[in-house]
Amino acid sequence: MISQKYKEMLGAKSVIRQMSEWAAGRAKEIGSENVFDFSLGNPSVPVPQAFTDKMIELLQSRDTMELHGYSQSQGIPAVRAKFAEFLNKKYGMNYTAEHLFMTTGAAGAVAHAARAVTQPGDEVITFAPYFPEYNHYVNQTGAVLKVVPADTRQFQIDFEAFGKTLNSKTMAILINTPNNPSGTVYATETIQKLAAVLEEKQKEYGHDIFLISDEPYRDIIFDGVDAPYVSKYYDNSLSCYSFAKSLSIPGERLGYVAANPRCTDSQLISAMCAQISRGIGHNCPPSVIQIAVAEVLGLTADLSVYEKNMNIIYNELVSLGFEVVKPGGTFYIFPKALEEDSVAFCRKAMKYDLVLVPGDSFGCPGYFRMAYCVETEKVERAMAALRRFVETEYQA
Amino acid sequence: MISQKYKEMLGAKSVIRQMSEWAAGRAKEIGSENVFDFSLGNPSVPVPQAFTDKMIELLQSRDTMELHGYSQSQGIPAVRAKFAEFLNKKYGMNYTAEHLFMTTGAAGAVAHAARAVTQPGDEVITFAPYFPEYNHYVNQTGAVLKVVPADTRQFQIDFEAFGKTLNSKTMAILINTPNNPSGTVYATETIQKLAAVLEEKQKEYGHDIFLISDEPYRDIIFDGVDAPYVSKYYDNSLSCYSFAKSLSIPGERLGYVAANPRCTDSQLISAMCAQISRGIGHNCPPSVIQIAVAEVLGLTADLSVYEKNMNIIYNELVSLGFEVVKPGGTFYIFPKALEEDSVAFCRKAMKYDLVLVPGDSFGCPGYFRMAYCVETEKVERAMAALRRFVETEYQA
Repeated sequence: MISQKYKEMLGAKSVIRQMSEWAAGRAKEIGSENVFDFSLGNPSVPVPQAFTDKMIELLQSRDTMELHGYSQSQGIPAVRAKFAEFLNKKYGMNYTAEHLFMTTGAAGAVAHAARAVTQPGDEVITFAPYFPEYNHYVNQTGAVLKVVPADTRQFQIDFEAFGKTLNSKTMAILINTPNNPSGTVYATETIQKLAAVLEEKQKEYGHDIFLISDEPYRDIIFDGVDAPYVSKYYDNSLSCYSFAKSLSIPGERLGYVAANPRCTDSQLISAMCAQISRGIGHNCPPSVIQIAVAEVLGLTADLSVYEKNMNIIYNELVSLGFEVVKPGGTFYIFPKALEEDSVAFCRKAMKYDLVLVPGDSFGCPGYFRMAYCVETEKVERAMAALRRFVETEYQA
Repeated sequence: MISQKYKEMLGAKSVIRQMSEWAAGRAKEIGSENVFDFSLGNPSVPVPQAFTDKMIELLQSRDTMELHGYSQSQGIPAVRAKFAEFLNKKYGMNYTAEHLFMTTGAAGAVAHAARAVTQPGDEVITFAPYFPEYNHYVNQTGAVLKVVPADTRQFQIDFEAFGKTLNSKTMAILINTPNNPSGTVYATETIQKLAAVLEEKQKEYGHDIFLISDEPYRDIIFDGVDAPYVSKYYDNSLSCYSFAKSLSIPGERLGYVAANPRCTDSQLISAMCAQISRGIGHNCPPSVIQIAVAEVLGLTADLSVYEKNMNIIYNELVSLGFEVVKPGGTFYIFPKALEEDSVAFCRKAMKYDLVLVPGDSFGCPGYFRMAYCVETEKVERAMAALRRFVETEYQA
């Protein structure tokens, strides 16, 4: 019989999706160049030519059976070895191929990591504002996602609120730095303090607490920002990455879980993720993409446009009187709305063809997200619309 | 805390995997050309040049943001529309894009289909011999896989045994035709009879019974074999496909679920699969592969070698006195072992550098599987080893 659970889920369309669909409809009316769509976190800079060239070279020169052949469930061993070596050099870690599990994007990475280190009934804590899909990645494992209210002053961690949420059922902490939706990067001090709390609580509760670090924006860091590699600071850590944003290849779904070599059962996590895969039919990301990305490790798209856009938007927001934390990375900014009801605020913005996303679904009502993975020229034009919106609706 | 469930799964290595690892070790000792490895179902014929050419053309000419961009969770709409049109023309169906859900291979397809049409506690019936991963795809949903003993006479369906397994908790039937491991194709008569039983039981039990048809070998059909398109014969059917074998691209993980337009909630199944994906972090198969495959629909690798190999092996087996059903497709054959304990039989074969897989894990002890996706020259040499094995161990 049709699954009632998944059938019922169909009704609950995400707000982001609704906004994005409205934007698509409006684009048909007035032209997409006139709709200032800041709703979707979709990379806007081209795939680097060197990646395309490498793909073509591989297709022209490699044995096709090897290029398109089955990879092991954990990922192609030679690819995992290269990734481990790259991470070791970049971050001073000691990964080997066996610590890596290749996934379909960061979504696959977080979902597998959550299953690997929890049992049904366990609690996983995350911090608002947070990516709403975490509810699905965690709750579908049988564990329960608990959300610590936001530190709206800096979008670091509200440790007092965190302390109240921690308890002996807490088996994992899920963080996202650089953060979607706030653009904030957790400072070294924040990570160190978090690690210290977790070390202490592990002793107190007598069990491991894993830190799942979701890092798809790790390579989009703005000038001068302190951006620590989380796994350096805490042993029981699983680093989740995706090449979606850094190489502008979100559709190719390539990511990984890297288990800290110093974590409990570090030799087993990747193999356990492969067992998890068997039950959901995932198995492994595409071979040709694994091979091609391994050949260009360290390459990124030209990510500088995101910082340029951020500065334009941040300065305009400040000049318009918004309360806003300056992002340290990503392509998101998360200002406070000009009225308490951020859904109402975002609805009003639509009259000015500005597509903004209310903070409610990120666990942070009263704020709104702008995804500025948009051409700079359009960002500049959007600022005029933003000014008109604010002046007309809130300063008139 | 580390998941005990997945940690415990690590101990239980599949027999196929063990055999294949032994073969790899043996190959290092005596050269891979001298190990007659029939253990793995990995395509042995090259990827068609037209597919490689299309990939290169796309990479050279298409906008990279489009080529590597996010696809919808259900799959790229234009790709799904093309697949629907292709299936309609080939099989006389009425699919539209909304009936299709793109998956990571047939594994993803079966796992999603099973979740879409069951609730925890429901029963799903399959028929021995069956692909052992079905245990994972089904049991991880919370439903329970029930296995009907094999019809060893023809590897069609033992309807008497089926009747005893059916009950009001049966919510889905999972079939695999052409079949791994037997190579048998269900005849039109078998499918019609199965459909009639299910129609009757749906009325008797007052609920839907879905037929999940796993068809990754659909395009490997031997000369003159009756190979019906299952969904033509039963309304509540979900067809699961993969391009792994037909295009020799198993590592690219492209497959789909096609919901019969006449099934209950046919408009919802694909969208429900997308909801299932959210919870496991799967989302969608690689965009560039979706787009490339859609451009070459109908193209296959040169699959004729599989039939050639089958005939060589089948004739030799018959001449050696094996009891064996002639395969109608796939690249598998499933003869009766020459002693009751097929594990012992396969172990003895290893002395002759023959790697065979015992039927036990396929729910059919006493038989063994040979995967003849192997160069024909090697198949021919293997027949001498097979003869030596049989004559020495069983006829001396």
